[in-house]
Amino acid sequence: MEDFTLNILNLFLVLVAAWLGGIASKRLGYPPILGELIIGILLGPTLLGLIKETETIKVLAEIGITLLMVYIGIEIDFADLKKASWAGLLAAIGGFIVPFVLGYYTIIYFGGTPTSGLFVAIAVGVTSLATKSRILVDLKLLNTRIAYVLMAGALISDTLALVIFAGIVSFADAGSLDLAGLLWVLGKALLFFTGTIVIGNYLLPILGKRISKFKNQSSTMYFTMILIIAFGYAELAELAGMHSILGAFMAGLFIRDNLFPKNIAREVQKSFYDVSIGFMAPIFFVSAGFNVNINVFQTDLVMMLTIVFVAIVGKIFGTMLFYLPSGHGWREGITVGSGMNGRGAVEIIIAGIGLEMGIINQSIFSILVFMAIFTTFTVPFMLKWTTTWLRNRGELIHVDGRKGILILGVNPISLLLAKHLNEKEPIVHMVDANLEMVELAKERGFECTHGNALKDVVMEQAKANECSVFIGITGNSEVNLLAAQVARENFFIYNNHILLTKDEGGAGKSILEAIKASTVFAMKVQPEPWNQKINSGNYVQKTNTVSNSTKTRDWVLKHGKGKILPLIIQDKEGKKRVFQYEDTIASGEKVIYIT
Amino acid sequence: MEDFTLNILNLFLVLVAAWLGGIASKRLGYPPILGELIIGILLGPTLLGLIKETETIKVLAEIGITLLMVYIGIEIDFADLKKASWAGLLAAIGGFIVPFVLGYYTIIYFGGTPTSGLFVAIAVGVTSLATKSRILVDLKLLNTRIAYVLMAGALISDTLALVIFAGIVSFADAGSLDLAGLLWVLGKALLFFTGTIVIGNYLLPILGKRISKFKNQSSTMYFTMILIIAFGYAELAELAGMHSILGAFMAGLFIRDNLFPKNIAREVQKSFYDVSIGFMAPIFFVSAGFNVNINVFQTDLVMMLTIVFVAIVGKIFGTMLFYLPSGHGWREGITVGSGMNGRGAVEIIIAGIGLEMGIINQSIFSILVFMAIFTTFTVPFMLKWTTTWLRNRGELIHVDGRKGILILGVNPISLLLAKHLNEKEPIVHMVDANLEMVELAKERGFECTHGNALKDVVMEQAKANECSVFIGITGNSEVNLLAAQVARENFFIYNNHILLTKDEGGAGKSILEAIKASTVFAMKVQPEPWNQKINSGNYVQKTNTVSNSTKTRDWVLKHGKGKILPLIIQDKEGKKRVFQYEDTIASGEKVIYIT
Repeated sequence: MEDFTLNILNLFLVLVAAWLGGIASKRLGYPPILGELIIGILLGPTLLGLIKETETIKVLAEIGITLLMVYIGIEIDFADLKKASWAGLLAAIGGFIVPFVLGYYTIIYFGGTPTSGLFVAIAVGVTSLATKSRILVDLKLLNTRIAYVLMAGALISDTLALVIFAGIVSFADAGSLDLAGLLWVLGKALLFFTGTIVIGNYLLPILGKRISKFKNQSSTMYFTMILIIAFGYAELAELAGMHSILGAFMAGLFIRDNLFPKNIAREVQKSFYDVSIGFMAPIFFVSAGFNVNINVFQTDLVMMLTIVFVAIVGKIFGTMLFYLPSGHGWREGITVGSGMNGRGAVEIIIAGIGLEMGIINQSIFSILVFMAIFTTFTVPFMLKWTTTWLRNRGELIHVDGRKGILILGVNPISLLLAKHLNEKEPIVHMVDANLEMVELAKERGFECTHGNALKDVVMEQAKANECSVFIGITGNSEVNLLAAQVARENFFIYNNHILLTKDEGGAGKSILEAIKASTVFAMKVQPEPWNQKINSGNYVQKTNTVSNSTKTRDWVLKHGKGKILPLIIQDKEGKKRVFQYEDTIASGEKVIYIT
Repeated sequence: MEDFTLNILNLFLVLVAAWLGGIASKRLGYPPILGELIIGILLGPTLLGLIKETETIKVLAEIGITLLMVYIGIEIDFADLKKASWAGLLAAIGGFIVPFVLGYYTIIYFGGTPTSGLFVAIAVGVTSLATKSRILVDLKLLNTRIAYVLMAGALISDTLALVIFAGIVSFADAGSLDLAGLLWVLGKALLFFTGTIVIGNYLLPILGKRISKFKNQSSTMYFTMILIIAFGYAELAELAGMHSILGAFMAGLFIRDNLFPKNIAREVQKSFYDVSIGFMAPIFFVSAGFNVNINVFQTDLVMMLTIVFVAIVGKIFGTMLFYLPSGHGWREGITVGSGMNGRGAVEIIIAGIGLEMGIINQSIFSILVFMAIFTTFTVPFMLKWTTTWLRNRGELIHVDGRKGILILGVNPISLLLAKHLNEKEPIVHMVDANLEMVELAKERGFECTHGNALKDVVMEQAKANECSVFIGITGNSEVNLLAAQVARENFFIYNNHILLTKDEGGAGKSILEAIKASTVFAMKVQPEPWNQKINSGNYVQKTNTVSNSTKTRDWVLKHGKGKILPLIIQDKEGKKRVFQYEDTIASGEKVIYIT
């Protein structure tokens, strides 16, 4: 039968395409958006013509953009921005301004209008947020100064780009302006920011409180509430003459902290993530590929190469130049620039809006899509080269803003671990729900908080904010997993190592990967026998110096899984770290284990 | 600025309208759909004209229907259908067939076409699933025979309606048929059902397994996968000449069990629930109100009254008639019929499709919407009258198919509770993660399973399937809450009573309401002191006979919150139940408590 509005087959194929593109991209270590753009170009009208842009796709894509902007806003923590520091600000500004200016003049040089120049300038200036944490983890850069600068840089640069974008849209929309018109545009913008800030800071908390008192409240109600706020803010932005995506972004910023209790926030954010990143945003990115004109490789090759060149060189050297006053050296500046070289969601969204508004033509849009693809390609390689370069020169600076280690679960094993980790300086914080065990830990000289680690308030007390490592080592795998998730999501602890007991089935492992935690001891362990052994003093602590670089898991397999418990890896400087699955023992490092 | 496709303001207003309508409806004890339909009529083009049907609304509404059908499918458990029994089947068939036939002839009588007659017939025949559990809980009907018959009846009736609907659409779509055409339609339908069953039973499990081995898998990936399967099935249904909603429904049926591990299923289902019930489906129901013509009250009043009359009387007496052979009596038949009298999502969806396909006109569509509103209104009243009637006659039969009580957490308090509850017959099953406590429980003569209660496999071992009450009484409120959720969602235990410790903040309470659990002891309790008291034998057990019916919470406040621990309520027949928040102690019942 005829379907009345939807073209289900097309929607189905677009979803499949997005999924396949995203998966393939992730497999190769790239953000999904890369694969989604490429598959959109391949399967869309540009080349194969298997999928096309229907009304359904358009509507979902646009709502997808709105939701994605909300999500990007939710992900940004004002606290993170405050931590950004002088260096991050410099990198962000330099990495934005220089390619912005170069991008603008490139378009003017090739005969474009000033407005289209400004659009391209923003697109060239932005930095992709999407890739950040993944690559930093892969390259083991967490806890380096670069990582902090990169994250802050991307955040600031995106915020900057969106504000400038809103300004340009206001003016482009108003057409030619006299002074009165200019003041009107500025006044509306001011009104918008004042209004959204007042609503966000004063009305949303009141609303959140009222909802929390509803008898039939549920997290679904909060989900609906977020949508309403997001579209409400989007409409306000439109009314103020700015684009709706800015409103959605602002909504995200405020929803984060002001609307609801943190435990519900996590659940709702998950749904929001699923709908935006798992459903609608990929539809937008695939459909962005539909509008790409592959002929630009023939007709506008010079302009394309220039823009890509300007984007890459402008970003990297712009960052480096502005970064110099930080005193961290030009090499670190180049490294940061390389890390910020990717363009992603925000750039494609801006390019798409420019195309729809008729400000840029299809050729320039296509060039911007290819620019996003090329620059994103470069990030892993260049960041790897540059960080290796820094590392080899001994210039990869580790920041120990967060050197604490948070251990959940007081028991003989964890006390032994804590003793090792606390050797050089007191960095271990422990937490347990059992008052007796808390007392025991305190007797042994450890800081220990009493309470439920699944609660933010307890984690705060346990100084989770100062920790970079979380070790969950209670006898309950599920509790360890849940707490690791809290540590990661609410306290930004990215090194999570947890005890999985042997009776833990396969399910635990999949969650483990989802929350990016690893097993402590690099194997499943039944803690009870070991706890008894340690308690009774009936164990021997041994040390094994590794001659060839080995993965921890291999070390465990080689030394007999059942008979030993590897606790600590000690590097050549004597620094100790916990023995866990996702680690490699370098040649000359020692493993401290008990049997 | 002009927005290019979306009308954000309208979308925003529709969402707000849906939200307000849903909330108001829930407050009054009705399903949200009722408020959504009414507010759509009030604010839409029919009356005030504040909101309208844009392309965006249409697309979201239609995707909303598809997702809603998937969700309805996911909610249906084949196991439940098997348990449906002879009586449920009779009620479902009678409650469908009789109004179906009456509805058909009503339309023919008023001069409608046979096809439109069939559409109305289905709409009149279906039963709303949405209301079931809520009303059953409110009227304390869980564990009565009526509840089982009602749930099974609604499930069977909806499944029946959808299959017949698909058949009618196939034929309506094919136009006039010769024998070859008829065979072709039937052949395609057969192919569709065979195909979807084969895919659902054989391919989806393989797919699920493959995904679970992906390195970067996440629950978002499963979410995307569900969408792909849903739209894939929807397209198959279209190809087979049936409507896409039947495909979506079939997808839901299979996704439930075959795609992924249960722990992920719960998380993904939550997102799916949020997107469909918390976002898109309400847009459909509000927009259904847009197409209502209020003039039918003048132009077609007689037809409307006839259809509503036929719907109510046909449903109730049809159910009663067919129910007679069950031997459960005509009064119970009328009660079941009253409970099944609501029409909801499925009816509105079918009516909407009929309107879009041009099979029914706007007047009949409007009548069907009002019929849904009227019949839904009747359910709480009529079910309350009829059950009170049965109750007063002593004919409200309780089913003890599930009489087990599952206690999580072995400790002195829970052992004392278990002893009381097990007094008449061994119905208590205990579960604990600590082996020593498990041994202790076994020594005391209780069935006790060792393991993590958050795991389905452990819960199954602990016979959760045979229990109707879950008591979570470990010292960790969070674990109690999570386990109660598992009990409810994976094992359909609707009476969940859990221990909240005093250090539990407000957050726990809101979750408590969300998962519909209540606090055992009707207050927050610090278990440790009580456990020690009981262990040392340093406590006194007392009994208090209540003279005037009292709420448990009031009893606690009256008898001194801090000094006593109420364990059990014993009714006049000597039957014991656990003391919990959401209960009323009838006059003459005894409270057993310790001090």
